Amino acid sequence: MKTIVKKLKDMEFKSPILIEGLPGIGHVGKLVADHLVEELKAEKIIEIISPHFPPQVIVGEDGVARLVRNEIHAAKVDDKEFLILVGDFQSTTPEGHYEIAELVLDIAHEYNVKMIYTLGGYGIGHIVEKEEVMGAVNDPSLIEPLKEAGVEFRPNEPGGGIVGISGLLLGLAVERGIPAVCLMGVTPGYMIDPKGAKGVLKVLMRLLGIEVGTGKLDERAKEMEKVIAKLREMERAQLPPELSTRDEELRYIG
Amino acid sequence: MKTIVKKLKDMEFKSPILIEGLPGIGHVGKLVADHLVEELKAEKIIEIISPHFPPQVIVGEDGVARLVRNEIHAAKVDDKEFLILVGDFQSTTPEGHYEIAELVLDIAHEYNVKMIYTLGGYGIGHIVEKEEVMGAVNDPSLIEPLKEAGVEFRPNEPGGGIVGISGLLLGLAVERGIPAVCLMGVTPGYMIDPKGAKGVLKVLMRLLGIEVGTGKLDERAKEMEKVIAKLREMERAQLPPELSTRDEELRYIG
Amino acid sequence: MKTIVKKLKDMEFKSPILIEGLPGIGHVGKLVADHLVEELKAEKIIEIISPHFPPQVIVGEDGVARLVRNEIHAAKVDDKEFLILVGDFQSTTPEGHYEIAELVLDIAHEYNVKMIYTLGGYGIGHIVEKEEVMGAVNDPSLIEPLKEAGVEFRPNEPGGGIVGISGLLLGLAVERGIPAVCLMGVTPGYMIDPKGAKGVLKVLMRLLGIEVGTGKLDERAKEMEKVIAKLREMERAQLPPELSTRDEELRYIG
Amino acid sequence: MKTIVKKLKDMEFKSPILIEGLPGIGHVGKLVADHLVEELKAEKIIEIISPHFPPQVIVGEDGVARLVRNEIHAAKVDDKEFLILVGDFQSTTPEGHYEIAELVLDIAHEYNVKMIYTLGGYGIGHIVEKEEVMGAVNDPSLIEPLKEAGVEFRPNEPGGGIVGISGLLLGLAVERGIPAVCLMGVTPGYMIDPKGAKGVLKVLMRLLGIEVGTGKLDERAKEMEKVIAKLREMERAQLPPELSTRDEELRYIG
Repeated sequence: MKTIVKKLKDMEFKSPILIEGLPGIGHVGKLVADHLVEELKAEKIIEIISPHFPPQVIVGEDGVARLVRNEIHAAKVDDKEFLILVGDFQSTTPEGHYEIAELVLDIAHEYNVKMIYTLGGYGIGHIVEKEEVMGAVNDPSLIEPLKEAGVEFRPNEPGGGIVGISGLLLGLAVERGIPAVCLMGVTPGYMIDPKGAKGVLKVLMRLLGIEVGTGKLDERAKEMEKVIAKLREMERAQLPPELSTRDEELRYIG
Repeated sequence: MKTIVKKLKDMEFKSPILIEGLPGIGHVGKLVADHLVEELKAEKIIEIISPHFPPQVIVGEDGVARLVRNEIHAAKVDDKEFLILVGDFQSTTPEGHYEIAELVLDIAHEYNVKMIYTLGGYGIGHIVEKEEVMGAVNDPSLIEPLKEAGVEFRPNEPGGGIVGISGLLLGLAVERGIPAVCLMGVTPGYMIDPKGAKGVLKVLMRLLGIEVGTGKLDERAKEMEKVIAKLREMERAQLPPELSTRDEELRYIG
Repeated sequence: MKTIVKKLKDMEFKSPILIEGLPGIGHVGKLVADHLVEELKAEKIIEIISPHFPPQVIVGEDGVARLVRNEIHAAKVDDKEFLILVGDFQSTTPEGHYEIAELVLDIAHEYNVKMIYTLGGYGIGHIVEKEEVMGAVNDPSLIEPLKEAGVEFRPNEPGGGIVGISGLLLGLAVERGIPAVCLMGVTPGYMIDPKGAKGVLKVLMRLLGIEVGTGKLDERAKEMEKVIAKLREMERAQLPPELSTRDEELRYIG
Repeated sequence: MKTIVKKLKDMEFKSPILIEGLPGIGHVGKLVADHLVEELKAEKIIEIISPHFPPQVIVGEDGVARLVRNEIHAAKVDDKEFLILVGDFQSTTPEGHYEIAELVLDIAHEYNVKMIYTLGGYGIGHIVEKEEVMGAVNDPSLIEPLKEAGVEFRPNEPGGGIVGISGLLLGLAVERGIPAVCLMGVTPGYMIDPKGAKGVLKVLMRLLGIEVGTGKLDERAKEMEKVIAKLREMERAQLPPELSTRDEELRYIG
């Protein structure tokens, strides 16, 4: 099976800004992007389903299951256009990461995206004293305006690089001539962090020239934690390894 | 090597119901589906062998080895037609899961399947007090009749989604326009559970309008446990890691 | 890169017997097959190199490195013809196992192989009191002559099936109409076992109607243990995980 | 996405020597090759980006992110021509290793490379008393001149073979008729080792007939250690497993 890009709606764009927020460290990027989708009343225009995602469906409030997926939502605020990439998962393999990132850039190219913001967390392993947002770019000319918006730059940070789609979009967008920025909220890393998300959101609002409330971020973070607590509980309810030999590769829920 | 679908027998169907029960949580789905194959005297019509399954043969009572595989058995009860998907394993990789699920849906499409039931367990990590069957669907209109048959629906449950083929068939069948339901027997999860299987079987009989005995489920569960105990024993008899460097990726039995 | 089959020598065969002995439980199969290659003065006719094997070279006595590989050696004893499949490794992935097995069967088909013996160990996790060889077949008619040669058959044993190429060759040879037998020497499993190998060799000699000495098996096992001890030592000398982040997927020796 | 070979500059070569030094045991090979690139003022002529590398960008001193990659740098010293293969990572899968090695050999073939040196470490698990460089070759005729340059050869060493690109280049270059040597600095293995690198560099200078300072090797090793310490710190700041279920395959930094 190949990755499928389902266009749900035809919309015209001049040169939108693409914002990516998929699950990652502290779920900071996901919190911000999901929040933007809701606050900007963005409309879902694309669904991506892919064998590179886990083989899994999510069951919604109504008992209806849907494949895990990535989605692109579109919002127009005054004369500003935004495409927001959100989703349940990133890829399960390195090769899949590269493929999905390329595919997102194909879409970006098609819609004439002029700028990409990828959102993530920067884990430091302990409580964060001061709200802080670190940046990385794929072109040096992007740094100055970011600094003015309050983004921190430290040489060679993050030392471990940026892993996953937030990093790949920066690296691969160079080949397409699309400027791209990664904003990383400094976060403990070991918890879902609405505070880190707030920091990123504030900076992003300044950069995009938009304004949205931040109140619901805490609520959203709590909901995510509940989902994750459920997952944890279910995992404890799996067959112990010695009873699951014949399906050891995956923990089947259904 | 590509996945191979071997048609063993040509049979005509009007619009059969496909029932999936492959290994998973508590082996609930497998117990029910294997049971149905036997009780309905279903006939094997298709074998699926695939490099996405473990590289392994199963040795039968007679000492004859056969590749691990998935199988589709067909049964006709009065004017009702059933295709039952059973097997030794699910795929070993995410990509393989998607491929096998698509392939099963190709077969479903070819045979004009009008409805899919996937069967599984819902692990809760402790003893189950009350027989209970949870449901998920790929279309909201399917919920009401399920509730009437005693299936429980709780918002966002299972929280971890449904992993493996039971989930994927629901999610991917949407694209084919085939309604699909997942029935999950609530089960401790850490043991093979004939009680959970009985719950699912009862609900399924109500939904399908058929009747089969449930007596042999306990026996079947005991047999599965014996097989798994053997596996466990053999695993303890492997080369320790430091002596198996040159074949560390797999534990070879033969 | 694709798997490469290098034919080193053209030889004519009427209908040879293929014997497989790659690394596995107790290295029983490898011990016997390597021994046969030497005792029968078999000639190497084919080398198989493949991206499904570990990315590694073996350094010989002379300091010359060669890719890890599988090899087919040919021997003629009176009017009997043997092809012996030996090698350093089995595949590193399930998909690779299926591909290599199919490729070996392509070769078997080309050379008109009339019978396949795959050799392995049957690990029981404790000292073996009595020399014993278990069997599995891909056709019931093969059992009787095996029993006469002293091979044991027990219903559903090995309970875990036969994993790796020894199993797959049996299962996939059915599709080609080639009869195939797996001989498994009962072995503790946690050590390289020349005693288990002797048992298999004796049975095999009876079945093939040939005679070779067994003396060198102990010596061969000791050599293998030395190699493995070296591997163990080198592994302990790797970068600790926290210093090897950038090459964590493999332990690089070179 | 396919592996991409980006030619940055067209340069003419008669028959250069290819030197490989990617991350590995004690980072010995990487230390030496990076050092040579700087000391010989080599010019980057090729960049390789590949889905077989981790899905990751590296952030430089200036805050600019770039995809992880392999690079080939070219240097001319008098009438000598060198191509030096350096980079951030080796492949993440066995199949990827073979593909990248083949691709490097395609480039070697195109530039008429007459000789390959691959550089690595030989981990012994304890402090190294005496500077020592072990060798392996892909053709016996290469051994004598190496011995004269001080390279040690011991039968069947390294016992575990040579894993990764340093080994594969030797093994696969045979098929192309390119002589290749692997030089392994004896090293504790559990630390980044500038001393082991010095040993390799000295031998290599003798073999290549060039001279470069060794002073900066210690400095370079310290820098690498800092980067790795950062990585370690960031890893400790990740979501704990039970909070990262939905992105468990990778630890996302961005």
